Amino acid sequence: MRLSIPIAVAVLTRVASSHGRTDQVDVAIVGAGLSGLSAAKELSAVGKTILVLEARDRVGGRILDVKLPNGGVVETGAAFIGPSQDRVLALAAELQLETFPTYNSGENVLWQDGERVTYPTEGPAGNIPPISESSLMQLAEAQARLNAMAQEIDVNAPWNHPQAVELDSTTFDSWLDGATPLEEARFLFDVATTSIFSAEPRELSLLYVVAYIASAGNSTTPGTLERLTSTAGGAQERRIKGGMQQLAVKLAERLGKKRIALNAPVRRVERRGDSYQVTADGITIKARHVVIAMSPPLAARIVYRPQLPAQRDQLTQRLPMGSIGKAIAIYNQPFWRADGLTGQAVSDSGVVRSAFDISPEDGSYGALMGFIEADQMRKLDDKSEQEIQLRVTNDFVNYFGTNASNPIGWVIQRWDNEEFSRGGPVAFGPPGVLTQYAPALTRPFERIHFAGTESAPYWTGYLDGAIRSGERVAKEILDAF
Amino acid sequence: MRLSIPIAVAVLTRVASSHGRTDQVDVAIVGAGLSGLSAAKELSAVGKTILVLEARDRVGGRILDVKLPNGGVVETGAAFIGPSQDRVLALAAELQLETFPTYNSGENVLWQDGERVTYPTEGPAGNIPPISESSLMQLAEAQARLNAMAQEIDVNAPWNHPQAVELDSTTFDSWLDGATPLEEARFLFDVATTSIFSAEPRELSLLYVVAYIASAGNSTTPGTLERLTSTAGGAQERRIKGGMQQLAVKLAERLGKKRIALNAPVRRVERRGDSYQVTADGITIKARHVVIAMSPPLAARIVYRPQLPAQRDQLTQRLPMGSIGKAIAIYNQPFWRADGLTGQAVSDSGVVRSAFDISPEDGSYGALMGFIEADQMRKLDDKSEQEIQLRVTNDFVNYFGTNASNPIGWVIQRWDNEEFSRGGPVAFGPPGVLTQYAPALTRPFERIHFAGTESAPYWTGYLDGAIRSGERVAKEILDAF
Repeated sequence: MRLSIPIAVAVLTRVASSHGRTDQVDVAIVGAGLSGLSAAKELSAVGKTILVLEARDRVGGRILDVKLPNGGVVETGAAFIGPSQDRVLALAAELQLETFPTYNSGENVLWQDGERVTYPTEGPAGNIPPISESSLMQLAEAQARLNAMAQEIDVNAPWNHPQAVELDSTTFDSWLDGATPLEEARFLFDVATTSIFSAEPRELSLLYVVAYIASAGNSTTPGTLERLTSTAGGAQERRIKGGMQQLAVKLAERLGKKRIALNAPVRRVERRGDSYQVTADGITIKARHVVIAMSPPLAARIVYRPQLPAQRDQLTQRLPMGSIGKAIAIYNQPFWRADGLTGQAVSDSGVVRSAFDISPEDGSYGALMGFIEADQMRKLDDKSEQEIQLRVTNDFVNYFGTNASNPIGWVIQRWDNEEFSRGGPVAFGPPGVLTQYAPALTRPFERIHFAGTESAPYWTGYLDGAIRSGERVAKEILDAF
Repeated sequence: MRLSIPIAVAVLTRVASSHGRTDQVDVAIVGAGLSGLSAAKELSAVGKTILVLEARDRVGGRILDVKLPNGGVVETGAAFIGPSQDRVLALAAELQLETFPTYNSGENVLWQDGERVTYPTEGPAGNIPPISESSLMQLAEAQARLNAMAQEIDVNAPWNHPQAVELDSTTFDSWLDGATPLEEARFLFDVATTSIFSAEPRELSLLYVVAYIASAGNSTTPGTLERLTSTAGGAQERRIKGGMQQLAVKLAERLGKKRIALNAPVRRVERRGDSYQVTADGITIKARHVVIAMSPPLAARIVYRPQLPAQRDQLTQRLPMGSIGKAIAIYNQPFWRADGLTGQAVSDSGVVRSAFDISPEDGSYGALMGFIEADQMRKLDDKSEQEIQLRVTNDFVNYFGTNASNPIGWVIQRWDNEEFSRGGPVAFGPPGVLTQYAPALTRPFERIHFAGTESAPYWTGYLDGAIRSGERVAKEILDAF
């Protein structure tokens, strides 16, 4: 049984498609993800006329909630928020959305060499995976080294780090070969890496990883690896009652349907005198400024006239989207809770290497979410949804027991197949990109401005970063008016 | 004085634009580079109806000759051919184009630490750069190791190498750190790398480099690094009288103007029943099969319906074009020849790190070509042509003496700024790409087929590979009919 009816279709009837317009606006915003909507919010607040052009039939971009037949909602895209993510927490408050803690009581599962062990999330030995002491020491030391390097990073200019070129010349994999030779330490880093980036350590520049860690904070709270990987105290700490996509849906409702055109994939941005003509399927608009609120690889697929500078174009060739799917199994009960488990698992095998409990706050039914990432996702590229369900079920039974074998429903979301995402959660940096191209993430070209979570100094790759990037371009534009 | 009037405009009046057609053909071919034209040649030879849709106002893709006011021609793109490049040599012969050896008599220049030394290209010490014996040993040993690894590669499936994942997990830079710690050995590898790939060692997967070396041969001649870097006996051995672009222009003339639509950038490829509708600016055509004869990053900018599989789409996000410019200084005489110099230089500083004599065979005037590559090209991204000329002049004076200070003309070609190339000479592999995505370089999707030099098993990145890829897709299509 497949239950993935996008909730957006229901919620967004009020934000109807608005094709046929030929208006002139102050700012055309390409993309109704959280970065585009945040720019729209800031600009309309001060009276600028705007139009958001969105390729999909819904707002939210990489946030997508799905409504279940039982009335519940599960997040198939962005699902968590956490401390130091000031902008997204402020937006949730402003939109009167309530947050609640991700379920985190009891023990986590570690699946290693075909065996399951559990360990507490709290208490004196809280959150310490049961691996050998030498591996733990290595893990802690590598983590400390990464955090120390991250502290040396200027999040607004990671390329200015004194060893930037050196760090950008090696893969994270090569660094881990040296830092974590013990297999148990290494495997935990591998799982952390794929969970954060949906890319393998071999695909990532060491500098990019360090800069990403540095970005996991705010101007008063330095970023740390723990903040990226943790539930309590970290990026997975909290959830939003009723689902994440409300952030986008409610923002869109406030903007009003006249300001958002759905089903309008933008194909061309062309300068015409003092304006830009923005051509989407079914709609053309003129605007004084244009905001490209998209991931770099998808932004590359628009035709720009005049063409963009080489640095910007080649940047968009060099930051690929991670490979990610989410498999969500629905159960009548969150049965693992009764067994003293958090629903969180870390594994060295299977298609799901990390899992979370994303049941509703009241626990009225159970939802286990398994990340399918990087190599694991790519191996399943041509597999049917049924086969993926079988494999994930096998993993969930290993991690949470035989009660996991009979879900009452599934939601499988494969972001790599989404035409207007083509991967997720973030467009990441292979070696050599950050030092040579990163300024083009934010540098405007004429009156074309670039947003998107990839361009944020804090919480790059997260909703918080998306909002920050939208606010930054809004400011850029207002400064120019 | 700027002399870069594209020769194509003059030559191609006979291959006129053919907008307005709505025909149905057996095969629509996207791209009139050598891969697309070769596919067209094979398919029309057996009576298939075809149309080649080309975005530019000329054929040739990454081959572009420029006519000089003195009647001569210089290559601003692909310029050389060499032994084991059977397919391009056969095409030149078939088109009755004569080849001649690249000027290689006398001594090469090595510019290092601000000093010039020269060394002979022939004789017992031929082609051995005058660096310390220990550096030479290190250089030779590293080269031997790379060649040995290349011999273990199956060019049709580099990902099957027993250490494929390991080799694909590290940058070429990290490998060189271990293999060539001596500065002199390292700098020569750096120059070779940027000359071959227009990318820095830090941007490249070690597996990709080894596979590229393996590809520099044919089914009876194993690829070696020397064949990539050498003039005599290597990829720079020979030139074509009258210019390289004739390969494409003459192929196009044979096909006839009805089979090529210029100024027709393809925007959409959509399945309509048993056919595909191919929509370019100003022209729409229906075809049973479609050939995408483009580099992967540019192929990504077409809208496909149904959309392409994740493996193919994500491949196109992961192979970026190198960063390359060519600065060609024209002189009344090839003055360096009288000084006993080949016109070839290798340098550890300046914007030009490698240079060639591309004067005409009769030496009736002089043409020095300097490659501007990778970091050097990117640094000049926002610089004027005048400033580039000044810097290149400075380099040429260092390498070839004060006679170089007063060229009578310049041709500066910046491939990164070419809308329909956006870099060159090849879309290269960062770490982790070859092992996970390379099969998608050649695997057709339905009746959409993928050509382009990047997809060739031999001479990837060269004209020879482009032709091989065109012949391969033609065979794929004929097998399917």
